[in-house]
Amino acid sequence: MKEGSESSRETRSRMRVIAVQTAQHTQMKNITAEVERVVAESECQSGICCVYVPHTTAGVMINEGDDPDVMRDIEATFNKLAPQSNSYRHAEGNADSHIKTALTGNSVTVFIENGRLALGRWQAIFFCEFDGPRRREARVKIIADAI
Amino acid sequence: MKEGSESSRETRSRMRVIAVQTAQHTQMKNITAEVERVVAESECQSGICCVYVPHTTAGVMINEGDDPDVMRDIEATFNKLAPQSNSYRHAEGNADSHIKTALTGNSVTVFIENGRLALGRWQAIFFCEFDGPRRREARVKIIADAI
Amino acid sequence: MKEGSESSRETRSRMRVIAVQTAQHTQMKNITAEVERVVAESECQSGICCVYVPHTTAGVMINEGDDPDVMRDIEATFNKLAPQSNSYRHAEGNADSHIKTALTGNSVTVFIENGRLALGRWQAIFFCEFDGPRRREARVKIIADAI
Repeated sequence: MKEGSESSRETRSRMRVIAVQTAQHTQMKNITAEVERVVAESECQSGICCVYVPHTTAGVMINEGDDPDVMRDIEATFNKLAPQSNSYRHAEGNADSHIKTALTGNSVTVFIENGRLALGRWQAIFFCEFDGPRRREARVKIIADAI
Repeated sequence: MKEGSESSRETRSRMRVIAVQTAQHTQMKNITAEVERVVAESECQSGICCVYVPHTTAGVMINEGDDPDVMRDIEATFNKLAPQSNSYRHAEGNADSHIKTALTGNSVTVFIENGRLALGRWQAIFFCEFDGPRRREARVKIIADAI
Repeated sequence: MKEGSESSRETRSRMRVIAVQTAQHTQMKNITAEVERVVAESECQSGICCVYVPHTTAGVMINEGDDPDVMRDIEATFNKLAPQSNSYRHAEGNADSHIKTALTGNSVTVFIENGRLALGRWQAIFFCEFDGPRRREARVKIIADAI
């Protein structure tokens, strides 16, 4: 984890960068523990946590973290909705990766309560690699409720 | 509506939980009035309102609240994009519900102006049940512009 | 660009409305420069920028701004996932536009660092018109990290 543009302790906000190394072309990587660590380090007790992915062939989503088959099914369906093929206009061969990112989105927002991510019982945060393997990043910003 | 972790009047933030009872397997339930009530109770005049759904087989979206056929068409298309079937890996039989949630997303953000949700003329906020009927919840957090 | 409900200089927030005139039925219009201008005028050095589209047949997404073919491929795939047809229930003939908006979403959140949008190298913000040509708007709200 690299340091981002850190605001001083007196201010309400903190930004951090989580380095994400993906190993496959398409990979749904659970980054909940890394995001939780940023929240813990911020000492924020109550607020919101935004996770932002600065790429155009990778996104971020929240879904089930318990059974890995759930994310495999999502991945398989995304491959059906936007198949890898040569019939796209974009000449770099990764048009499908851009389309999957469009369907996924580039940010998620989670509330912080009692100093922790207020995720639902089965929820986890996934970095969604659609054109790997690559060195990627997810940026986390925490906005505390009060100064 | 149950009380969430309420911040005191002096702080800028307020969190509330809206209980949502769904009646069908797939159901797009308009929760705009409930969210608007949270905004009114907060006495926030200007800020942002985040609605967060802590489930992995239900999400939240903004779309037309006037003609119910719009949401039925969205529902029907989602059923085509992620059909209920036995061909998924996830063994619980609700893989399609997780995929529809992935397409929908778990949060929406709406601005607050003059003490009200600044929705567009035709917009409404829908709790999207993809694996009901169930007892669910939507969490609402309001961040005022200034203390 | 029209003025929105402007908060005074002393507060942490600023809202602006970007007028968007679309020229085609479906059009992915790059509005990054307009959003960047709102950020610059706010004099916010660090914070978050929310872009909100108050329509039900238009949305907003982040994707590649370099090769226009990327957005054309996204547009073409969305047309396959939700084809224009008469088989929908919604009688106004634009059910597909509502569905594409549901897939796209109505808001994006981008961090602000050093007084600028912290977009990734290839990222741009696109107003996504799915039922044009029309006179539309995108609303921008900036939340500074500290007063």
